[in-house]
Amino acid sequence: MNYRMIRYILGWILIFSALFMIVPMITALCYTEKAGLAFLLSAGISAAIGSLYVLKRPAKTELHAREGFVIVSLSWIALSLSGCMPFVFSGAIPHFIDALFETVSGYTTTGASILTEVESLPKCVLMWRSFIHWVGGMGVLVFIMAFMQLSGGQNMHLMKAESPGPSVSKLVPRVRTTAMLLYSIYFVLTLAEFVILLFADMSVFDALNTSFATAGTGGFGVKNTSLGGFSPAVQIIVTVFMMLFATNFSSYYLIMKGSFKDAFNSEIRLFFAIAITAAIIIAVNISDMYGSFGEAARHSAFTVASVMSTTGFATTDFNLWPELSRSLVVILTFVGGCAGSTCGGIKISRIIILFKSMGKELQNLVHPKQVKKIVVDKRPVEHEVVRSVNVYMVCLVMIFVLSLLVISFDNHDFTTNFTSVATCLNNVGPGLNMVGPMGNFAGFSPVSKTMLIFDMLAGRLELFPVLLLFLPDTWKK
Amino acid sequence: MNYRMIRYILGWILIFSALFMIVPMITALCYTEKAGLAFLLSAGISAAIGSLYVLKRPAKTELHAREGFVIVSLSWIALSLSGCMPFVFSGAIPHFIDALFETVSGYTTTGASILTEVESLPKCVLMWRSFIHWVGGMGVLVFIMAFMQLSGGQNMHLMKAESPGPSVSKLVPRVRTTAMLLYSIYFVLTLAEFVILLFADMSVFDALNTSFATAGTGGFGVKNTSLGGFSPAVQIIVTVFMMLFATNFSSYYLIMKGSFKDAFNSEIRLFFAIAITAAIIIAVNISDMYGSFGEAARHSAFTVASVMSTTGFATTDFNLWPELSRSLVVILTFVGGCAGSTCGGIKISRIIILFKSMGKELQNLVHPKQVKKIVVDKRPVEHEVVRSVNVYMVCLVMIFVLSLLVISFDNHDFTTNFTSVATCLNNVGPGLNMVGPMGNFAGFSPVSKTMLIFDMLAGRLELFPVLLLFLPDTWKK
Repeated sequence: MNYRMIRYILGWILIFSALFMIVPMITALCYTEKAGLAFLLSAGISAAIGSLYVLKRPAKTELHAREGFVIVSLSWIALSLSGCMPFVFSGAIPHFIDALFETVSGYTTTGASILTEVESLPKCVLMWRSFIHWVGGMGVLVFIMAFMQLSGGQNMHLMKAESPGPSVSKLVPRVRTTAMLLYSIYFVLTLAEFVILLFADMSVFDALNTSFATAGTGGFGVKNTSLGGFSPAVQIIVTVFMMLFATNFSSYYLIMKGSFKDAFNSEIRLFFAIAITAAIIIAVNISDMYGSFGEAARHSAFTVASVMSTTGFATTDFNLWPELSRSLVVILTFVGGCAGSTCGGIKISRIIILFKSMGKELQNLVHPKQVKKIVVDKRPVEHEVVRSVNVYMVCLVMIFVLSLLVISFDNHDFTTNFTSVATCLNNVGPGLNMVGPMGNFAGFSPVSKTMLIFDMLAGRLELFPVLLLFLPDTWKK
Repeated sequence: MNYRMIRYILGWILIFSALFMIVPMITALCYTEKAGLAFLLSAGISAAIGSLYVLKRPAKTELHAREGFVIVSLSWIALSLSGCMPFVFSGAIPHFIDALFETVSGYTTTGASILTEVESLPKCVLMWRSFIHWVGGMGVLVFIMAFMQLSGGQNMHLMKAESPGPSVSKLVPRVRTTAMLLYSIYFVLTLAEFVILLFADMSVFDALNTSFATAGTGGFGVKNTSLGGFSPAVQIIVTVFMMLFATNFSSYYLIMKGSFKDAFNSEIRLFFAIAITAAIIIAVNISDMYGSFGEAARHSAFTVASVMSTTGFATTDFNLWPELSRSLVVILTFVGGCAGSTCGGIKISRIIILFKSMGKELQNLVHPKQVKKIVVDKRPVEHEVVRSVNVYMVCLVMIFVLSLLVISFDNHDFTTNFTSVATCLNNVGPGLNMVGPMGNFAGFSPVSKTMLIFDMLAGRLELFPVLLLFLPDTWKK
């Protein structure tokens, strides 16, 4: 274990965390808010500790796969601890566990909140919540890699550990260039949403926050009713962008290169097929509850896009919908969007592999001697990837069961507990009953909140990096 | 596909189904009930159709693996269709889907009922419900194999397809002798429970029914309050026997042979460890609700044994317990007992393999070049078995999601829907809320009941045989 290198990278993480806080500080200056001082103090502490760690660049910069996983997990923990300071110092969220919950929910782009009321918060605090969505969405280490020169092969291990999806494809041979390309696409798309929202008569502050939260598929809103109070035009724009940010970013690169066929691969086709089917079923199911079918369809499309992209915005309280729609929302919570996007959930590419491995297992029973590889988009999928995806599902179930048990000590109802774990583990945000779109997570005990913090981190980092922290072998020489 | 041989075996299944009906006919004679005629009529129809199929023994008796699976699935469907006739003819359950639900619930040893009241039913009908639990518990084809001479290797395919657990071990080289040995153990244990229950002052009728339902880990009771109205002594006896019937039967054989070390393998140790831990947690959690800690412990132990053995008897309404205990009951519903017993659920041996494959996957991330096999009880587990167990979990989740969606059309609450599917797919019986121990499945629509019938069959036959029926390749030449 290269502890020096781990410490060195964690140092940089803390320094970057401090740099990120410049954004809310500028916001505080614009609106002359005293809470800005909390960010100044937090940034100072983070930068000071971080600087101590990066003073000496380690001689041996070599990183193995396991160190990549450990660094990613510890980085996200460091980032969250550093990022929760301003909430505490500003008095916006006085309790540590609550502040940590909110920060982890922000960075992991979950959007689950312990706040019962957000409109009275200082604007710089709201901006911090949205901005950490944006940073967390594309990945913090990917961000750092885009700006920092690590030696050659090490980057790939970090990228693998942080990027969503069963396998990482480099767009171009160099990892750093890939990271920069991804961030450019991310930046341009975010900017596009911001500008279009301005045209739809949103204020600059609301549009910027909404764009950050959509881009990261986060879901923290600046209003107590999430997006319910905004115009239908705004809601439709956000629906479109939630879907765009849930799409594999490499597809945008392929489109730019003119490879349309490769861009619209089976994952993207299935993603849109599921979304459209679900939106139609829900629209029909809830049509009685709204003034017109059009209105029902708008809410349905918004909710499906919000849940599948694991954003978690709401335009209406889907907790009040009939059970079919409610169940569909819960199921889509697990599905998620495409790999290589900013969203959480199991992800479509994994689901494709899971279905194909089910088919293969059944085929094997019919033709026991046949040996065939699973093929996706005419490319064979390695056995290791298939096995890893299957085990991923098993891990997901096991973590789910443990979490359900822990939070059931609080004696909330089964539906609340089930959907709380589901929405945290899949980084969506809202669930049903107490944690519905108009509810929040304030009612849980500190122990339950800690469990859900773990779930959000585990979900965002796709389980294995976080689980590895608990494996004794990881820490052996 | 050897269609002649499939037809031939299905013929025998129908004849045996008719023979099974002799038991309720005798009951009807004892109590001079008219409903006995319904069994006579049903047996006549079954025997007549069955005889047509078995008139000519096929020249080619060879069976491949896929035919084994198809035969097992179709046999269970034939058995259920034949077995539901007496319910309809006697007027006890006038609607076909309801009667089929009750029969499938009986044969699959689920014990979920659409009846709101059982005490007014004719005794022969009650006996039929209990007796099909007993037959279904050990497996119908295993039963037939114990009495019928199929040529050599074919039996193994059938036994593999029907027996619970990730892999089947023959106790002795010959499959037929194995089947006879298993049935002897089964018969002796059932008899032991019957005799002991008589000593605990149960009536002959009640003791016989309770023994049949315990042995098959079924759960249909002869009283509206399940076992709640019986003495603590009876409840404790049934607790012990539920655990005994959830234990791998080959362990009894090993004990008889004196191989105590092999008998108490890791599966059995973990099974009892989970059961005892869960019982203690629940007892503490519910202690306020009962007169004494002893009473709470008795109800807790009974419920844990009932749910883990997937029997489904109840001594108290656990639906009213605090959420921690309720969640534990739901989780134990999925866990189940040991492989090679009469119970449903995922089963302990699968859970051991799942945990070990999680550990192996994590180990692989730390040491990418290491290739190690998973070892259980000092024996390596073949990769095929590990893969199959992982895919089994995936199939379980997929069937679960589909079922949840289908039954949510009925607009019952999420907890009812979730636990209905869970309890049917794992062959337990009761769930929470509407389908709690004091509730029933009468409130579901025919479509939902059909979905749950599928789940019960899929659960009992361990998914693959039933799923294969939907694979086009199964039916190709």
